[in-house]
Amino acid sequence: MPAYATNMRLKFPIVALVLEILTIVLFAVFVVYDDGKGHDAHGNSTATHQEEAVDPMTLYPMFQDVHVMIFIGFGFLMTFLKRYGFSSVGLNLLLAAFALQWGLLMQGLWHLDNGKIKVNIFKMINADFSTATVLISFGAVLGKTSPVQLLIMTILEITIFGINEHLVAEILGANDVGASMIIHAFGAYFGLAVARMLYRPALRNGHENDGSVYHSDLFAMIGTVFLWMFWPSFNSAIANPGADQLMAVTNTYFSLAACVLSAYAVSSLVEHKGKLDMVHIQNATLAGGVAVGTCADMNIGPFGAMLIGFVAGIISTLGFKFLSPILASSLGIQDTCGVHNLHGMPGILGGIAGIVAVALGKKDGSAAMQAAALASSLGFALVGGAITGLVMKLPFLSQPPDQNCFDDSIYWEVPEEEEVEESLAHGEHSTNKAEA
Amino acid sequence: MPAYATNMRLKFPIVALVLEILTIVLFAVFVVYDDGKGHDAHGNSTATHQEEAVDPMTLYPMFQDVHVMIFIGFGFLMTFLKRYGFSSVGLNLLLAAFALQWGLLMQGLWHLDNGKIKVNIFKMINADFSTATVLISFGAVLGKTSPVQLLIMTILEITIFGINEHLVAEILGANDVGASMIIHAFGAYFGLAVARMLYRPALRNGHENDGSVYHSDLFAMIGTVFLWMFWPSFNSAIANPGADQLMAVTNTYFSLAACVLSAYAVSSLVEHKGKLDMVHIQNATLAGGVAVGTCADMNIGPFGAMLIGFVAGIISTLGFKFLSPILASSLGIQDTCGVHNLHGMPGILGGIAGIVAVALGKKDGSAAMQAAALASSLGFALVGGAITGLVMKLPFLSQPPDQNCFDDSIYWEVPEEEEVEESLAHGEHSTNKAEA
Amino acid sequence: MPAYATNMRLKFPIVALVLEILTIVLFAVFVVYDDGKGHDAHGNSTATHQEEAVDPMTLYPMFQDVHVMIFIGFGFLMTFLKRYGFSSVGLNLLLAAFALQWGLLMQGLWHLDNGKIKVNIFKMINADFSTATVLISFGAVLGKTSPVQLLIMTILEITIFGINEHLVAEILGANDVGASMIIHAFGAYFGLAVARMLYRPALRNGHENDGSVYHSDLFAMIGTVFLWMFWPSFNSAIANPGADQLMAVTNTYFSLAACVLSAYAVSSLVEHKGKLDMVHIQNATLAGGVAVGTCADMNIGPFGAMLIGFVAGIISTLGFKFLSPILASSLGIQDTCGVHNLHGMPGILGGIAGIVAVALGKKDGSAAMQAAALASSLGFALVGGAITGLVMKLPFLSQPPDQNCFDDSIYWEVPEEEEVEESLAHGEHSTNKAEA
Repeated sequence: MPAYATNMRLKFPIVALVLEILTIVLFAVFVVYDDGKGHDAHGNSTATHQEEAVDPMTLYPMFQDVHVMIFIGFGFLMTFLKRYGFSSVGLNLLLAAFALQWGLLMQGLWHLDNGKIKVNIFKMINADFSTATVLISFGAVLGKTSPVQLLIMTILEITIFGINEHLVAEILGANDVGASMIIHAFGAYFGLAVARMLYRPALRNGHENDGSVYHSDLFAMIGTVFLWMFWPSFNSAIANPGADQLMAVTNTYFSLAACVLSAYAVSSLVEHKGKLDMVHIQNATLAGGVAVGTCADMNIGPFGAMLIGFVAGIISTLGFKFLSPILASSLGIQDTCGVHNLHGMPGILGGIAGIVAVALGKKDGSAAMQAAALASSLGFALVGGAITGLVMKLPFLSQPPDQNCFDDSIYWEVPEEEEVEESLAHGEHSTNKAEA
Repeated sequence: MPAYATNMRLKFPIVALVLEILTIVLFAVFVVYDDGKGHDAHGNSTATHQEEAVDPMTLYPMFQDVHVMIFIGFGFLMTFLKRYGFSSVGLNLLLAAFALQWGLLMQGLWHLDNGKIKVNIFKMINADFSTATVLISFGAVLGKTSPVQLLIMTILEITIFGINEHLVAEILGANDVGASMIIHAFGAYFGLAVARMLYRPALRNGHENDGSVYHSDLFAMIGTVFLWMFWPSFNSAIANPGADQLMAVTNTYFSLAACVLSAYAVSSLVEHKGKLDMVHIQNATLAGGVAVGTCADMNIGPFGAMLIGFVAGIISTLGFKFLSPILASSLGIQDTCGVHNLHGMPGILGGIAGIVAVALGKKDGSAAMQAAALASSLGFALVGGAITGLVMKLPFLSQPPDQNCFDDSIYWEVPEEEEVEESLAHGEHSTNKAEA
Repeated sequence: MPAYATNMRLKFPIVALVLEILTIVLFAVFVVYDDGKGHDAHGNSTATHQEEAVDPMTLYPMFQDVHVMIFIGFGFLMTFLKRYGFSSVGLNLLLAAFALQWGLLMQGLWHLDNGKIKVNIFKMINADFSTATVLISFGAVLGKTSPVQLLIMTILEITIFGINEHLVAEILGANDVGASMIIHAFGAYFGLAVARMLYRPALRNGHENDGSVYHSDLFAMIGTVFLWMFWPSFNSAIANPGADQLMAVTNTYFSLAACVLSAYAVSSLVEHKGKLDMVHIQNATLAGGVAVGTCADMNIGPFGAMLIGFVAGIISTLGFKFLSPILASSLGIQDTCGVHNLHGMPGILGGIAGIVAVALGKKDGSAAMQAAALASSLGFALVGGAITGLVMKLPFLSQPPDQNCFDDSIYWEVPEEEEVEESLAHGEHSTNKAEA
């Protein structure tokens, strides 16, 4: 265990407590239960909106699927690192728990009803959605940031997300039911911009802890598979009930299935001796869910969805193999989880597919507005991420030193690796691995 | 692997088979399918009860969420011990599978309909609930009890739970929709009373196996996160449909979110060098779900729920850090999983919050009856647990010896630790770790 | 890491890509969204079928439960092998993703509506079901087959499954709501026939990698418990809505509970020194779900379901202990996961229970047709599996050599076992375990 203190002793608790107390105060002022009698900001009854189903619990099973994606899916997907599992699943829980509260406020403030945010399942799904953007960005900077930095990122990112989401959905009136643009592309490019600002030259040649071990890769597969299974819920949760929702489920189900085949094929094709690479399998198999997001409730046909997924699996795998190393070496973008390949490029693909699909009349809308939505999402992400990255560099936010990156023990009490240690003791070696 | 036999060879199979056969006979006599035409013990139609929804499957998704909490949540939460994972998840499955059958009988006998128990999803949820009490108590004595002892505990605890539950819900008419009192406080203090009776002086200074390794802590996080995510279902499953159920979901969702922030903050504040402690994260983040249970369907406002969760996270973390060591050293209560901190104190907090909320008119009811319900739950738990603990000390129930505590190999065939062993063999050491 | 190439470099990617492109073309020709206005092949409106519920999303939560069983349940159940976890969960994902697409086509072709397959949640559940047969068979040949072989098996098995399923359900009109016969018995005996064809004499005395380590057994329990919990959804998903569906849930819930007790008891009874065996617990506890499948929606009474589960747990455990070794040594059937004990015998038991229950009038139907359905399922499985096994032996399908069985590193990039390696380095041994 390192001998230094984590320098978080007071900063982190104070920041966390102050943020939570502030949030509770804001909730006391603004947030009430939904009484089923909604009115929008202009005084019109919202009773015809999809959020006003007769039974207020109709969306609850889908909400829980999304909830599992946020907390198990993202959390365990990031446990692939050999010494960063506590932080991956633990900070994922911390950030998401705060982000959903903040997200409810930041989204709700755009849709006040007599000055109040009326919370219901629909709004809880949206709060979970806003959380997803933070977790995607977290993936880009995983292992290189302190909890305090990440809480600051959460506040800024969700605030900016709320603005862009309002612009895209309400002002531009663009379609993005599965959020290829406003969540995936936004979260990825936001995170990449932050990562660029936090560039670490000393990690140019890698870091000894920036890799997996056998069982950490299996833990990561828990995340992958739960994300994969419940993605149809993510893409359909806020679709119009009935046929549209069924269409969103169907498109996502088949896009993901096709994506698995192309991701496996390309992984084998490009890798050493034709072997499969766990990094690709853990991530690129999900690109079909990202890429079909914008089009999920459009009449593109099951085979159209499969084509999108098929292409996404290829692009994503190739990105991991060829593009990520270039981004790191040439542009100084060190993307720990490769979110550019899972959320960035597939998100843009999804946005473009949406432009084309709307232009072809697969859904009511304006191709120009779709394009504007994509541009807006990328613009807010890059500018917002760059500013956020600059803020995160402020010295008192306790960025970890290079040698402690990707290592839980800087922020966590980590148990001794008793197995090896004990065995070696029997072999009359007194090496204490944890001191190494 | 220890050379002694487990002394369970005949006792355990006989007890398990006899109990199951007895249970099947009781089911043949008492249990029938629900035909949707219920009448209560007084001959009144129960068609207006929440369990008589038009579609008998309405509650099924919530039932499955609760089911996941019982079998994955509790099961994996307890796998944090380095050498007791098989027992944690395996005995959890065994006990829960038996407990849900026994629970259906013990709860159903209080509500016979023409001499029969009519089983439906509502009753299955309640059977799972009764199971939760046993699993909470199991946490207190984890690693120090035999499967035979635990089956005996299951029978006694659920029987007593059924009495208290009937008293609280039917006689006192108290509110406890999320069961802070009748499940969490009851299960915790029952288990602590048992643990006191089974006090082991030899473990006063700890036990070498009473700790975690890196990957066992990650397995435990699977349990934590599933419990955390599905707790809104636990607290709302038996609420009145519609607005009440939505309120219970909302309150629990926000209480848990606030609890995470306070648990993390306090964990960092009280720990060595400001580091986070996995024991706190795995447990105290859930205290908000426990503490908001009684009030879940009360009109306390989202911020009220958050306050409860916030306080629960603080109390629970402080309990792990400061109170548990005192309970062990001064009172002889060795609480393996710290159920006092996750279920005990937060359960009492929930009960008190319920008294206050009812007194403030947040829900119809009597504050005195709420207080009586809390007192009844604690009383039945302490007395029932003490008696049960005495019964469990009977020598033929095969309590494991001190040196075999927290060790799967006394009851399980455990695979060789081939990795270490093999490597050492290559290093020309012949140490067989398993013999150590 | 082995020095040889995997000889999959081109074969596997080409097969995977060609199959997926072919599938997309077939989808473009045959598959459309369900518009809720179904007509069967004879032009009759299907609006009264259970798949035409008013809300097309009614079955979605059950679909997701089944989905979890397919991808998490089967995937992680097979991770028990110490060095084959990547392949278990990874190839499970690959095969299932392809199988569900192929299954939708192969089942849908028997029920065209104006020349089209109209996809809805009901059909997606059935597609997942057809996938289950492949994953069961995969269990029999786990560790001994290449991805190319397995993709070929998937195509053939699902095609044959589609024929048998049509025969059983439509021509014979037999009951098999939980698919004891058409999925479990079929998948098991199909896989055993394949395994027989792929018999490896060199593995007669076992293989050093054909076993578990401590944490791989815990990963497997994730699969076990998710299968166990969601089995009621599997057995009731396509039951008639309302009372029948509730009955199927109830019967499965109690059958599984009873099965746990008998499996634990018998495991302890037959094992060395009375200890529990993880192989039994991971598998035999599920036999109750298999065995109650055919009868799930029959009026057999909760205690009848428990009796079936109780017997299934005993048979399954005894099969693992006594029958599997004989099958391997005498008949040359090397059944890696013991699917004969989990799916084969319990599936036959389920079929027989169905014959008896129909004969006793517990459900409308013909006992003779039930018997014919069982015979048909076994016949198609054995003949189809034998032919498929012969096809899989074709040399260009790249069957792995004996010494590389049960080893991920032949198809996967496997990370170094850094922990042991590094520690030994500190102990001044340079043994590289991965080279061993």
